[in-house]
Amino acid sequence: MASADIGLIGLAVMGSNLALNIAEKGYTIAVHNRTAAKIDEFVAEAGELRPRIIGKADLKEFVQAIKAPRSIIIMVKAGKPVDDVIEELLPLLDKGDAILECGNSLYTDTQRRFDYLKPKGIGYLGVGVSGGEEGARHGPSIMVGGSKEQWHNAEPVLKAIAAKFNGEPCCAYLGEGGAGHFVKTIHNGIEYADMQMIAEVYGVMRDGLGMNPKQASDVFKEWNKGPLNSYLIEITGYVLEAIDGPTGKPLVELIVDRAGQKGTGRWSAIVAQEMAVPATAIEGAVAARSLSAAKDQRVAAEAIYGKRQAGGADVSLAELEKALLAGKIAAYAQGFAVLAKASEENGWNLPLGTIAKIWRAGCIIRSRFLDQMAATYDKGDNVNLLVAPDFVTIMKDAHPSLRKVVAAGALGEFPLICLSSALSYFDSYRQARGTANLIQGQRDFFGAHGFEIEGRGPGQHGKWPSTLGN
Amino acid sequence: MASADIGLIGLAVMGSNLALNIAEKGYTIAVHNRTAAKIDEFVAEAGELRPRIIGKADLKEFVQAIKAPRSIIIMVKAGKPVDDVIEELLPLLDKGDAILECGNSLYTDTQRRFDYLKPKGIGYLGVGVSGGEEGARHGPSIMVGGSKEQWHNAEPVLKAIAAKFNGEPCCAYLGEGGAGHFVKTIHNGIEYADMQMIAEVYGVMRDGLGMNPKQASDVFKEWNKGPLNSYLIEITGYVLEAIDGPTGKPLVELIVDRAGQKGTGRWSAIVAQEMAVPATAIEGAVAARSLSAAKDQRVAAEAIYGKRQAGGADVSLAELEKALLAGKIAAYAQGFAVLAKASEENGWNLPLGTIAKIWRAGCIIRSRFLDQMAATYDKGDNVNLLVAPDFVTIMKDAHPSLRKVVAAGALGEFPLICLSSALSYFDSYRQARGTANLIQGQRDFFGAHGFEIEGRGPGQHGKWPSTLGN
Repeated sequence: MASADIGLIGLAVMGSNLALNIAEKGYTIAVHNRTAAKIDEFVAEAGELRPRIIGKADLKEFVQAIKAPRSIIIMVKAGKPVDDVIEELLPLLDKGDAILECGNSLYTDTQRRFDYLKPKGIGYLGVGVSGGEEGARHGPSIMVGGSKEQWHNAEPVLKAIAAKFNGEPCCAYLGEGGAGHFVKTIHNGIEYADMQMIAEVYGVMRDGLGMNPKQASDVFKEWNKGPLNSYLIEITGYVLEAIDGPTGKPLVELIVDRAGQKGTGRWSAIVAQEMAVPATAIEGAVAARSLSAAKDQRVAAEAIYGKRQAGGADVSLAELEKALLAGKIAAYAQGFAVLAKASEENGWNLPLGTIAKIWRAGCIIRSRFLDQMAATYDKGDNVNLLVAPDFVTIMKDAHPSLRKVVAAGALGEFPLICLSSALSYFDSYRQARGTANLIQGQRDFFGAHGFEIEGRGPGQHGKWPSTLGN
Repeated sequence: MASADIGLIGLAVMGSNLALNIAEKGYTIAVHNRTAAKIDEFVAEAGELRPRIIGKADLKEFVQAIKAPRSIIIMVKAGKPVDDVIEELLPLLDKGDAILECGNSLYTDTQRRFDYLKPKGIGYLGVGVSGGEEGARHGPSIMVGGSKEQWHNAEPVLKAIAAKFNGEPCCAYLGEGGAGHFVKTIHNGIEYADMQMIAEVYGVMRDGLGMNPKQASDVFKEWNKGPLNSYLIEITGYVLEAIDGPTGKPLVELIVDRAGQKGTGRWSAIVAQEMAVPATAIEGAVAARSLSAAKDQRVAAEAIYGKRQAGGADVSLAELEKALLAGKIAAYAQGFAVLAKASEENGWNLPLGTIAKIWRAGCIIRSRFLDQMAATYDKGDNVNLLVAPDFVTIMKDAHPSLRKVVAAGALGEFPLICLSSALSYFDSYRQARGTANLIQGQRDFFGAHGFEIEGRGPGQHGKWPSTLGN
């Protein structure tokens, strides 16, 4: 007798937390895991939620326990494991059922699975879920893409478990095929840039202003009350004030400076390149992580070049705050430009205002800033954030500080990969007369590619001397 | 009766020039083109080289005119046209024959074609050819990848037509499959970065030092006598001094600042991301071209933010020269790091010293600098250029100037996408203690990803407070 409202396969940390969230919101959920012992363990530890959980070790019984039309969440490792589960489920499903894949899948894989299942009458939703473990358990941001019909079946439960911002669920349908996972990928790219700029500012505080972690923590906590108010700024305050139990020292000073990465930042960068959309802040952030991983090389290089000069950084905390804000605007402008272009190219009609809205709570990049962005995009067209009126006001006030910080970084030998790329992007974007005229001249010189002259049109050529013998 | 030493299909500009080059070096060449009229035209205009050219409108006759084992150059548009020609040739070839694809193909397509033809006993060489029209006609740089056996067949003619540096042909076999086209792709990525940095310096001269094009031209010509001696610096001098016939004005000032791009810079950037190798200078250069293409947006943004402040740039010409040199080292370090990693991943065993050598003449990025690089890489291992002794000496002297220029750019509102990325890359690379420790702390906070503590190993976790309700 089918009694479950929804099903979930994959009881690792994220899947377990999602399942508990669902049960807590009043839904009955059937759960399954490849390793059956995990099911028993999960059910046993579900406490007061236990009555709403139906554990099934047999896949067929699991499917049959779910009311039609079925929504089945898959929360397994990205890649082949997802395809394997799909193949195992297929013979057990009925037309109109849907698979909701909630892992960090490559959006092109999601598109492929969507296209594969569509003619079979099985719905496929590629669902981006952000917010980590805590989000999964208590309210993530949920980015849905895929079969619109099955989205409506799953909508109530997804909205029930999503984070809320001013009572509005941070969950929305964003488009067909891989749209949801695409948006999640770009979310992660922006997350990388956001985190990298915070780290660069911390570096200036530590090495340029001689601040210890506690002092830096206090500053981030103060900033969290202002325009930078966000989850990432908040947790930065916590990370910087944490003390290592055994030694009593600031924990951050003991952590080895080798950042890991799971790939989504890199995917963002690649996608942006494929779309021909400048995303230098995201690229810079990915590069920074890769460089951090090459610690041995960095140690060797410092031995050769010497430590950075022992000078301070001629910047104030107020300037650092504004620099971070200006950098953030540039980075988000890039991220949203990628979303806008992908939307156009894939026919997704991504609602940028909705995306900003569902990122206001639950997800890693949640911030006050996103609420301002939602209001901006809701007004109408998908302009580059740098020219949206509300952000122009902020940027005009903040970019002088970004300049000061980048200049101080350059002279003081602080690596500011992301902040400097944010600035150069801004300066390129607001420069009517650039320097690509020279590049066009050079390209015509060696490749006869032709250039445009105002009033004469494109395809003009120069008369160039020969360089033979040189 | 087969009498041609080699064959060539595709008589557009590049193919025609290559064919004439081959004939001029004493070889008999059979030529074919889809549109037969082009063949007649080409033969008719071959002048004194006509006796060595055998034009064949019929593909089978064309193939049979070539002595076995045959080498057939294809110089058609990348993509499907190449696959089409391969399919048309296949039934006409004999085992041991080889196709030499000399266009700008995506190296993965080349790898695919190599793999497809190998079991059929047909050799496939993906050949990167650089140097534009002039290079094709009088001596290009030639980067060969693919079937080693057939490389030996084609080697004499390729080396004969290649550019020479100190008498050495700028032509070499670099590895199996798509190795040659891969190296050509990275060459183009480096070319983008090189050109972009030159354009950025020109921008500072024009907008920060108030120099007119002739004055700027004179400076580049002077620089061409020093460590920056290179084809690109040379042609920059020519482009900046060119006068527009009709108006008598400096041509560069009339050229619209919208740069075109054929895609190879973008491919470089994508490949670097896929290899997880930081290539921010290349990425920045591609972004700069994309931003230049968005001229309407730039004009609109300048109207909103206002023109850059009318201040000068507090830098000297000597500092600009050194900044360009330092930026170049960083950009080439990135490009060669991509080559080294790709070599490892694809099992190509790319000889970096040889690559630097064959780039010393013929190709767009040819320079004195590359001769220094060749010497460095020939000494032994594939170190990052930033820590190769000869370049350390140059960099130690030059990076202070790069700092001054980047700082002046930041404060003076000059967009320095590439130069600033070169500096931040250098500063990240030579920093033993970075700021990724903070990132690792944050990643553990929201995702329990774990961090490493010296002496305790990886997989450590912090005890973090909850952020619910925030």
